[in-house]
Amino acid sequence: MSLSIPYDANNVFAKILRGELPANMVFSDDVAIGIMDLYPQSPGHCLIIPRHPGATVLDIPAPLLGAVMQRVQAAAKAVVEAFSPDGIILTQFNGAPAGQTVFHLHFHLIPRYDSLAMGRHGQGQKADAETLRTQAAKLASLYRAP
Amino acid sequence: MSLSIPYDANNVFAKILRGELPANMVFSDDVAIGIMDLYPQSPGHCLIIPRHPGATVLDIPAPLLGAVMQRVQAAAKAVVEAFSPDGIILTQFNGAPAGQTVFHLHFHLIPRYDSLAMGRHGQGQKADAETLRTQAAKLASLYRAP
Repeated sequence: MSLSIPYDANNVFAKILRGELPANMVFSDDVAIGIMDLYPQSPGHCLIIPRHPGATVLDIPAPLLGAVMQRVQAAAKAVVEAFSPDGIILTQFNGAPAGQTVFHLHFHLIPRYDSLAMGRHGQGQKADAETLRTQAAKLASLYRAP
Repeated sequence: MSLSIPYDANNVFAKILRGELPANMVFSDDVAIGIMDLYPQSPGHCLIIPRHPGATVLDIPAPLLGAVMQRVQAAAKAVVEAFSPDGIILTQFNGAPAGQTVFHLHFHLIPRYDSLAMGRHGQGQKADAETLRTQAAKLASLYRAP
């Protein structure tokens, strides 16, 4: 079976999970965290990152993946309430040829707005720090644990 | 809360779920089905469709979403075994502005190959029927229920 990617515990999300790097936190529990993407493809773009150390969706025990997805859904509901997008893209990349850049499993929630074009993954500009802090606080206040 | 899309029981996936339209079936259980996408963005592109009648990821009970994702993972593992892709994109669209074209919740598994460019969602060509049958049969033989 190909697409088996060794896990490197020094990836940036592992460092955030250990508190070694800062992040704009939306929620944090025993299963996962939610943070703002530093290079948003659209305003409100956030990430749900399981605590489980694995590179791809293939590398997490099935019941744990189910629990992670309940948090993805809860975060999506908060995104809807916070930013009233016209759509939301949920996406998750496995392997560099699929667009994965950090090799710790994570899910993107990308709000879509009729009035705004979406940026490309991995090619966006770093967001304004204060904007991200404000968005994270708003999402955190609306997030309801599953 | 915006992004609330009324469910229309006459959408094409509802018809497939009821057996009123044919599909290239990978698996079928009490939670979801897996089928080949008729307009694949890449060889092996398949869909996981919950039986639950709801338009978006916001519209399904959280525990059921967890169960669906376990099937998405099982299908991804079968895709890896069947087609040895170099990556897999998992994606799910909520609302027309996000690219959703069938308003029944579904997940895309899109294999990525170093040697092949990926087609665009909703703009691909219909796949050869015999190719889809063969791919579905291969995936079905490798799919292991979670």
